[in-house]
Amino acid sequence: MRDEELEREPAGDAGTENVIEGRNAVIEAFRAGKPIDKLFVLDGAQDGPIQTIKREAKKRDTMIRFVTKERLDQLSETGKHQGVIAYAAAYEYAEVEDILAAARAKDEPPFIILLDNIEDPHNLGAIVRTANLAGAHGVIIPKNRAAGLTAAVARTSAGALNYTPVARVTNLGKTMEELKKEGLWFVCADMDGTTMYDLDLTGPIGLVIGSEGDGVGRLVKEKCDYVASIPMKGDIDSLNASVAAGVLAYEIVRQRFQ
Amino acid sequence: MRDEELEREPAGDAGTENVIEGRNAVIEAFRAGKPIDKLFVLDGAQDGPIQTIKREAKKRDTMIRFVTKERLDQLSETGKHQGVIAYAAAYEYAEVEDILAAARAKDEPPFIILLDNIEDPHNLGAIVRTANLAGAHGVIIPKNRAAGLTAAVARTSAGALNYTPVARVTNLGKTMEELKKEGLWFVCADMDGTTMYDLDLTGPIGLVIGSEGDGVGRLVKEKCDYVASIPMKGDIDSLNASVAAGVLAYEIVRQRFQ
Repeated sequence: MRDEELEREPAGDAGTENVIEGRNAVIEAFRAGKPIDKLFVLDGAQDGPIQTIKREAKKRDTMIRFVTKERLDQLSETGKHQGVIAYAAAYEYAEVEDILAAARAKDEPPFIILLDNIEDPHNLGAIVRTANLAGAHGVIIPKNRAAGLTAAVARTSAGALNYTPVARVTNLGKTMEELKKEGLWFVCADMDGTTMYDLDLTGPIGLVIGSEGDGVGRLVKEKCDYVASIPMKGDIDSLNASVAAGVLAYEIVRQRFQ
Repeated sequence: MRDEELEREPAGDAGTENVIEGRNAVIEAFRAGKPIDKLFVLDGAQDGPIQTIKREAKKRDTMIRFVTKERLDQLSETGKHQGVIAYAAAYEYAEVEDILAAARAKDEPPFIILLDNIEDPHNLGAIVRTANLAGAHGVIIPKNRAAGLTAAVARTSAGALNYTPVARVTNLGKTMEELKKEGLWFVCADMDGTTMYDLDLTGPIGLVIGSEGDGVGRLVKEKCDYVASIPMKGDIDSLNASVAAGVLAYEIVRQRFQ
């Protein structure tokens, strides 16, 4: 997550309902099973409630960012953060199994979009929107280094979040291994791959999209069966991540349905 | 242009260099031939310099927005707007002829992307980026109801604005008529069209993309030879405009180069 994005969101219509401030409020949110996207804790804080929060975060694989008091003051909307601010997801996450069930319900081979390092909420929202319209059965994102289902994502998805399940997993590579057992194979987008038109993109498929800067991470890329590239006829390096996802998703649509 | 975008830009890294405040500064900018994207004038102002500014604006087809003093005060960065604030383009506009010349220089049939009612600078930037990588020779935008080449657009274009010419025209339909004489034919994107895979998208082509909400305007649509639609397999209405532009541009790439 880039810091400027984090700072922008609470000011916009991300809505205060997703910001949870104060020790008890955050502990309650964890215990109620509310999905926490981001957790900020005062660096050096060691008291009992903070220890409880750390334990709850660990149980749920929620990464903690230890920050200064100044940073917390700046993020706080109530002025009463007591050393802890959490951001809850605006939407509920689905399970990977829900995505596979959606494919089965439609009697279609699974088509899943997996995102690695997509940190911009507008890209995440636009990709969920594309996933919906391209007939993908769901989107899988990692817990760390990724945008969560904030109100900004919901808005950019133009309603698609109400239909297309988004699952969040601790380890994208491990999830890919499990999905391979379900018959899926994986294609990731990168510059050094085979031109997408020359690959057979039919059948049960996972399309892995990386960030614009870094592409797909090495460990994730190693789990991919193929690397697909979009032909580049121009002068610059890469397409916007949501445009690249759209172009590849629609090449899959073309091959599946034409 | 939506007001919230306008208000956002001066606060970001759009840069103060593009905001021109005060009567003489704005008159000088016009006389120096600086491209003015937006012009705000105090409603009811009638003095000599304001009349000069109105005349210069008319000569260049620059639309004037008449606003209250409160609005100008809010937009002003110097506090000395004297009833006039102009926003200059961060980049120079090209001419339509430059785009045709770029195609001739590469010995390729022209491939131009035309935008109707694209008011979001991030969409404009992402589309210029896509145009560059899909091998389009340029982008044409209308003067009114459109994002201009602001610093936000330049940033989102990821450098593509340095390579891909963007021309701004007064009347998109008239420009299309002129381009038809050069042998171009036009396809616009809309829901009620022929599935894009079933159209022949080779040859000298203009791809017309409309806004997400309203699509391509009626008068512009009537000038199009074909209407192409992207297959929609989902629950919601439309793709993000820059994703739709990417999907269609790459269907043209596939048909041209495969």
